[in-house]
Amino acid sequence: LADDLLPVTLPAPDEFLAAAIVQSGGRLVPPGPETTALVWNLQHKPDELKAALSTMSALKWVQLPSAGVDDFVGAGIVTEDFIWTSAKGAYAAPVAEHALALTLAMLRQLHKRARAESWGCQAGKTLYGAHVVILGAGGIAQEFIRLTIPFGIKVTVVRRTADPVEEAHRTIRTSQLAEVLPEADVLLLATPLTAETTGIIGAAELAALPKDAVLINVARGGLVRTHDLVVALAQGQIAGAAFDVTDPEPLPTNHSLWKEPRALITPHTADTADMIRPLLAQRIADNICRFREGKQLIGIVDPAAGY
Amino acid sequence: LADDLLPVTLPAPDEFLAAAIVQSGGRLVPPGPETTALVWNLQHKPDELKAALSTMSALKWVQLPSAGVDDFVGAGIVTEDFIWTSAKGAYAAPVAEHALALTLAMLRQLHKRARAESWGCQAGKTLYGAHVVILGAGGIAQEFIRLTIPFGIKVTVVRRTADPVEEAHRTIRTSQLAEVLPEADVLLLATPLTAETTGIIGAAELAALPKDAVLINVARGGLVRTHDLVVALAQGQIAGAAFDVTDPEPLPTNHSLWKEPRALITPHTADTADMIRPLLAQRIADNICRFREGKQLIGIVDPAAGY
Repeated sequence: LADDLLPVTLPAPDEFLAAAIVQSGGRLVPPGPETTALVWNLQHKPDELKAALSTMSALKWVQLPSAGVDDFVGAGIVTEDFIWTSAKGAYAAPVAEHALALTLAMLRQLHKRARAESWGCQAGKTLYGAHVVILGAGGIAQEFIRLTIPFGIKVTVVRRTADPVEEAHRTIRTSQLAEVLPEADVLLLATPLTAETTGIIGAAELAALPKDAVLINVARGGLVRTHDLVVALAQGQIAGAAFDVTDPEPLPTNHSLWKEPRALITPHTADTADMIRPLLAQRIADNICRFREGKQLIGIVDPAAGY
Repeated sequence: LADDLLPVTLPAPDEFLAAAIVQSGGRLVPPGPETTALVWNLQHKPDELKAALSTMSALKWVQLPSAGVDDFVGAGIVTEDFIWTSAKGAYAAPVAEHALALTLAMLRQLHKRARAESWGCQAGKTLYGAHVVILGAGGIAQEFIRLTIPFGIKVTVVRRTADPVEEAHRTIRTSQLAEVLPEADVLLLATPLTAETTGIIGAAELAALPKDAVLINVARGGLVRTHDLVVALAQGQIAGAAFDVTDPEPLPTNHSLWKEPRALITPHTADTADMIRPLLAQRIADNICRFREGKQLIGIVDPAAGY
């Protein structure tokens, strides 16, 4: 009977994830020749992963713990030798919630009010009926659209392929981004960091946005050219920017963005460890069941596309 | 034909509201014996209103411009002599949006992050599946429930009467408030300020909330005993409080709440003048049509209940 169980290696001790693995038909084995599936629960350590892979002659599948895998892809270890899965989509709910929190905070100027030490004047915009341009068409974009249905917003999704996102009013390709920026109330970044998307928001894109637009980034800091954002905010080219991710990350303590009145920065907490814990366990369990049943895994990474 | 038109007085010049009155069958007349309907577009000036009323021998109906009319009721001028209507319900959408913005901001600790000047640790709670206790069952409460449907929250409505709010999981009477406070993740105040509700949230209610609960007030500052809130926040009895209304209002510049790290204060901007302008015009137009057709007006104030 034990032969039916999938030999899974979990490098860092974690009783919660271990239980999810065992309950879904995995059998925990030490890293080595027995490892068929590797659940990499060490965040962002591509070098250690590379070393581990060399010891696993029977390895068929690697489950990565994060939704974005740009650091693993960048290290050149995500090859066609194995099936690679990320947690993409698994954390969409808390990240989309954070994106909505940041969006409403910017529109309602809560970042300015939090810093105020006296009563002020009326200010603020509404999300009802606003035009939100979302860069990315994955789980975060889809969940953000679902969360904002009651606000009756208009959504334009900008993505790599031409496949329309059903829930959006319009889906366009990345090459058409410049066309929609002048009509955006909110520009939400929710796309993987790849060779194509690195620095995709720079001086020209920020200048194309209306002066009262806000930029929200819950994806990766490297999507935005930080220096260009600093300049655009200082000059009032956009009304504000809220971001959960920065480049460099963590943002250094002496960085000028900490003093920028139009900026609101959260320290990569859109999906906290507490929030993702049950979501990652569920994804691992689902994928172990699928692997044992010979079904397609969820969150497969395309090494060529980089996500 | 002009006899069919309703003689309406609009004391402050306002072309936008004047157009709404004329388009819905009103005829603008100066304040005096001709005035049948008075659209009081001077905010919060009960003394002036009282003086105006004494000159209007034909007056039948007074439309007040705000949703809360506690100041007019408190001045003793809202009597059975005329029909009184407020804007209650008309501004529910922007106010509920503001309540959601404040709720998400507190759960995601955006008030603390806005004040931070360096990267920090992970923190934050999610709204998904949270238990929200709403004091009040009017337009704001109903719209807040509608906006948060995608989050799958559990809502307990606390109201004066026993009539259940259909969209809530549970509706209880104000006398049962103490029973549900220990289970609240969020306590949202969205009820009129009346003799019964003044100071309804004090030391005992704040102490009954869980330590990680947050208080949101978008109704009237006087619902909360300010001194008790100051103490509860300073002692960490609750995780935080965000409020658009204060007592006293405006909150004085030297008030200790401006320095309270667990507090977030917005200056009565849940419904800005820009946001309410079209909503008030629509309400006035609807009510003029109804008055001319002999139908029941929207937003009728019960002088005895005080709202």
